[in-house]
Amino acid sequence: MKANVMQQKRCNRYMFIVLACVFALNLACKNEGDMAKQKVDTPTKVIEKNDINRVEPLNWWVGFKNPKLQLLVHHPNISQTTPEISYQGVSIEKVHKADSPNYLFIDLNIAKTTTPGKFNIIFKKEGEADLIHTYELKSRKKPAEDFKGFTSSDAVYLITPDRFSNGNPNNDIVNSLKEKSIDRTNGYARHGGDIVGITNHLDYIDDMGFTAVWSCPVLTNDMPQSSYHGYAITDYYQIDPRYGTLNDYINLSEALSKRGMKLIMDQVANHCGIAHWWMKDLPFKDWINHQENYEKNINNWNNSKSITTNHRRTTNQDIYASKRDKENMSVGWFVSVMPDLNQRNPFMATYTIQNSIWWIETANLGGIRQDTYPYPDKDFMSQWAGEIMHEYPNFSIVGEEWSYNPLLIGYWQTGADNRDGYESNLKSPMDFAMQRFIVEALNEEEQWDTGLVKMYEGLANDFYYATPKDIMIFPDNHDMSRIFTQLHGNVVNTKMALSYLLTLPRIPQVYYGTEILMHDFDNPGDHGLIRSDFPGGWDSDTINAFTGEGLTDEQKHMQSFLRKLLNYRKESKAIHNGKTIHFAPENGVYVLFRIVDGETVVHILNKNSSTVKLDLYRFNEIGLNGKTLKNIITGENIKWTDSITLTEKGSIILTTKFN
Amino acid sequence: MKANVMQQKRCNRYMFIVLACVFALNLACKNEGDMAKQKVDTPTKVIEKNDINRVEPLNWWVGFKNPKLQLLVHHPNISQTTPEISYQGVSIEKVHKADSPNYLFIDLNIAKTTTPGKFNIIFKKEGEADLIHTYELKSRKKPAEDFKGFTSSDAVYLITPDRFSNGNPNNDIVNSLKEKSIDRTNGYARHGGDIVGITNHLDYIDDMGFTAVWSCPVLTNDMPQSSYHGYAITDYYQIDPRYGTLNDYINLSEALSKRGMKLIMDQVANHCGIAHWWMKDLPFKDWINHQENYEKNINNWNNSKSITTNHRRTTNQDIYASKRDKENMSVGWFVSVMPDLNQRNPFMATYTIQNSIWWIETANLGGIRQDTYPYPDKDFMSQWAGEIMHEYPNFSIVGEEWSYNPLLIGYWQTGADNRDGYESNLKSPMDFAMQRFIVEALNEEEQWDTGLVKMYEGLANDFYYATPKDIMIFPDNHDMSRIFTQLHGNVVNTKMALSYLLTLPRIPQVYYGTEILMHDFDNPGDHGLIRSDFPGGWDSDTINAFTGEGLTDEQKHMQSFLRKLLNYRKESKAIHNGKTIHFAPENGVYVLFRIVDGETVVHILNKNSSTVKLDLYRFNEIGLNGKTLKNIITGENIKWTDSITLTEKGSIILTTKFN
Repeated sequence: MKANVMQQKRCNRYMFIVLACVFALNLACKNEGDMAKQKVDTPTKVIEKNDINRVEPLNWWVGFKNPKLQLLVHHPNISQTTPEISYQGVSIEKVHKADSPNYLFIDLNIAKTTTPGKFNIIFKKEGEADLIHTYELKSRKKPAEDFKGFTSSDAVYLITPDRFSNGNPNNDIVNSLKEKSIDRTNGYARHGGDIVGITNHLDYIDDMGFTAVWSCPVLTNDMPQSSYHGYAITDYYQIDPRYGTLNDYINLSEALSKRGMKLIMDQVANHCGIAHWWMKDLPFKDWINHQENYEKNINNWNNSKSITTNHRRTTNQDIYASKRDKENMSVGWFVSVMPDLNQRNPFMATYTIQNSIWWIETANLGGIRQDTYPYPDKDFMSQWAGEIMHEYPNFSIVGEEWSYNPLLIGYWQTGADNRDGYESNLKSPMDFAMQRFIVEALNEEEQWDTGLVKMYEGLANDFYYATPKDIMIFPDNHDMSRIFTQLHGNVVNTKMALSYLLTLPRIPQVYYGTEILMHDFDNPGDHGLIRSDFPGGWDSDTINAFTGEGLTDEQKHMQSFLRKLLNYRKESKAIHNGKTIHFAPENGVYVLFRIVDGETVVHILNKNSSTVKLDLYRFNEIGLNGKTLKNIITGENIKWTDSITLTEKGSIILTTKFN
Repeated sequence: MKANVMQQKRCNRYMFIVLACVFALNLACKNEGDMAKQKVDTPTKVIEKNDINRVEPLNWWVGFKNPKLQLLVHHPNISQTTPEISYQGVSIEKVHKADSPNYLFIDLNIAKTTTPGKFNIIFKKEGEADLIHTYELKSRKKPAEDFKGFTSSDAVYLITPDRFSNGNPNNDIVNSLKEKSIDRTNGYARHGGDIVGITNHLDYIDDMGFTAVWSCPVLTNDMPQSSYHGYAITDYYQIDPRYGTLNDYINLSEALSKRGMKLIMDQVANHCGIAHWWMKDLPFKDWINHQENYEKNINNWNNSKSITTNHRRTTNQDIYASKRDKENMSVGWFVSVMPDLNQRNPFMATYTIQNSIWWIETANLGGIRQDTYPYPDKDFMSQWAGEIMHEYPNFSIVGEEWSYNPLLIGYWQTGADNRDGYESNLKSPMDFAMQRFIVEALNEEEQWDTGLVKMYEGLANDFYYATPKDIMIFPDNHDMSRIFTQLHGNVVNTKMALSYLLTLPRIPQVYYGTEILMHDFDNPGDHGLIRSDFPGGWDSDTINAFTGEGLTDEQKHMQSFLRKLLNYRKESKAIHNGKTIHFAPENGVYVLFRIVDGETVVHILNKNSSTVKLDLYRFNEIGLNGKTLKNIITGENIKWTDSITLTEKGSIILTTKFN
């Protein structure tokens, strides 16, 4: 340890000489009077150094609307130093000490005219350079407007990366991390899936008709157990080595991009993992919520010590909520191993916002999925989404509010007419309400107020939403029982559920394996079981869903059904942005139309097992009379005249578009 | 018939002479140049005549903001005549013929300076007075602003008038009406209750702590069967003779008024009864909806002939609803014996609005309850409520939308931020959503997402409403299973339900008999059973709930409990208009506070059967520490310190107000 310090000091002295020369050169440039040009032609040479444990963000870019950047610097006793930067366009506006002596927060201003490049931050002590860190300002690869987020034109494939495909068995076990084993027989252990596994199978995902991939979090979760799920992040700037490298992640994004597909990153602003590096040296007294309680009990931390959230999410909206309940909701910990980050600390707020921007820019993201949206401070969440959308006006963020109440779903969407004036800046809430209505509609018997009417009346709630088509809909996700299980193993109902949500004015998301009827019958709702391995993702697998080898006929039919529907959807302007007209269910038949000029999609949901005649006169206002339509699944043509005979239960999806 | 015409003609000639004199007198007045004064001092004498079958409204008043009045005149071949009026300030603006020759609609303009009084409308034929009708313009008894509608300061007692008390046995059977018998053993027959029966028992209702009476419709339902419910009106200007006279109704209103109580009239704009007088001679081809179908089948009318509504009420809001479904919803008949009125016919619209105003002014109403609110044309309903509120700015209207969806409840309330711009002008929607949440909350076991949390999260929806305290809440009503039945005969739960809704920021409504635990266990949901006779309302009754004679102890306790609570509520500013703060249920205890300066009401709902300690530290923000509170029901004092011990399941309602 001592030897290192000596070495550093020597280096520092050396650097001081180099920098003195650089400074002289800069002065010379200024004298020439055409400094900008000079800088572009012969950028300042910097001898790179990295004395500092952590400087985050790892780098930054020139050309953001917001010229400010706040660096978190973590190093023993760094607060005893004074940082200096000498780089044209970059100025230190303020240096903040924290409560811990081992942190500095440096406010930089980066002028628009700054030339991308590297420069050294010199941490001086008693006037002398003590430590040096080379920092890079990169040039942006594409205009901000070209970061196009997911929309209703997309179909999102949700993947639990540990469970999809093991592309690189060499990274299954990483000895520097706490959870070192893999065990595919244990639903809560790591199974070895990784980012390369996803990249390897983009042909499959693309061919299925998906246009975006949302992977559950891939950042390091160096937790002693259950680290596979990814929601207990211990380093916000590192890809979990068991999932691969930063390059693997960037490669995945590039490979998607080449196909016109998008990568959606799952981020977590509310909490980190308790093994996060900063948990042993928190910068401020209020870096996390209930920090005093944590620090008091740090040596014998367990469930009973944790002050957890009351999970009463309505306190975000409730005009009658007590201060205490609101506070509990927001500052209580999600679980005892996930410390609740205090976004009301402005340094934490800035850290989180910059982290998101860093990943968008680094990995060329096509969207962010933000975890547990109603749990962090809601004013912060508005700021977070607002700052991202300000930098990337065409970007997309989807936030998870697990509520069946449309009032709450609508509240969180940007453009909502909220009486409290809250503007979330969040484009896409999640439609848990509609998800449940769909399941109820299909599981229930048809009666006056049960069955398909649940879908019909559920969709009618769209009148309340600012932009219904920006809401994300899904049959299930990584936290819910698989849709095939929710529908009690009924394949026809599963097809109906999927095809309904794929024709709605929504952004659809499908969890990996739904296309082959993956289920959790053996223990419904069990997270490990829900997140089962995708067959074919491991070399040793005898069943391979990518090739179809070993799948049952039922699975193959489902896969083919979804592939046809998704591929039609991919090019369907009617489904992406068309007008919606639906007709109240009658006699167990519910009909939905999606319409643009030149394309009408008809979705007939029929709950009757025996043959029924569907009188088409009722739909005259759509103007299909006499037209020929094509069945999207079977390819058959059908003439729209007086009636259609429906011979079996299920969805019939027709289109007027033939090419 | 012929003799009558001859007689009329003679009378007409006589009247012509009289009128000629009046005309001469008027001319003389004009010559004097101070006509207005002259008219006040010696109003024009009119010899009253009534040749016409029907002129509606029956009379009108001077001094409305809207100077227009449209008279419906119904008489054989009246369209062949030309009406004339000679009365200072009153002018005929336009006379409309209808499709039937037996109608005229006369547009009058009544100047603000018009002197109240009577005048004749002379219907001339070939220049000669053919028929005469004396019409009266009354003076208004009180300023428009003094028609004060019900508010959250009120508690409404809902009565089915046929089933509450038989005050006048002489009107039980009226031979001129179709349903002539009474049979108290048949839930769907008439039982003899009447308006005088209500008036007779105002001591009881007042003493119980109610401040307003809403009686189900009392207008004539001359239907062959089930006429007791009142929702099939056959004459919009007549009190059903079996319920009494217009004077009886006015007396009831006056008696209430003297006690500071309000009368709420139940009105029906959507439909009439099929035996309505106009159904055999409809003025226009589009007076009712599906009129052609009705007229085609008039001679063998039955259920199968009726084109009924689809009851898909969401079509009022749904941005995706098909035109056909919207149309069906609005113009379909409610049931085959209730023709659907076409409010898009402007004469019908005016008729209905004037009828409501006529009753407000005639019976000094303190509110209107409008039936089946989402069924009539919604633009008309906005106009209807808007014109009433324009004339009576402090009036109240409550509309029935039977929906459990807060989105729809909120949509119908005036001040809603509806994306389609719809402004209902309706002060009070009904809170069926909260009603159901309360029942579920009490029937369910306490778990994370069941039990009291349903109340708590249900009430949180108030953030969406324009003015939550103007919404009407109720444990049940005349169309729902009795609350005691809904709560499976659990008295404690019934008390909790009642006391919860009586402490909410709402207008509470209680159905007669709830205070003595009336139920429909024998056939839950049966309308006849729900609307059972109130014991003691008939002379022969052996049990008398007015005196308490023959009631069980359980019934007496319930009655006493409600009496205490309602009487406290009557003077409680905290409950009427106070701030609301509630705390999420914890360990089966949910606590709600209502607060104004000088009065805090605490409602503790406890689901625990065994003794629990309620830590009061959690409620510190309310500022009750060290204060003494009184139990509203038991009168006991309690000191608010560290904790309260709850020894049994139920509601504890405390107040800081001692006088």
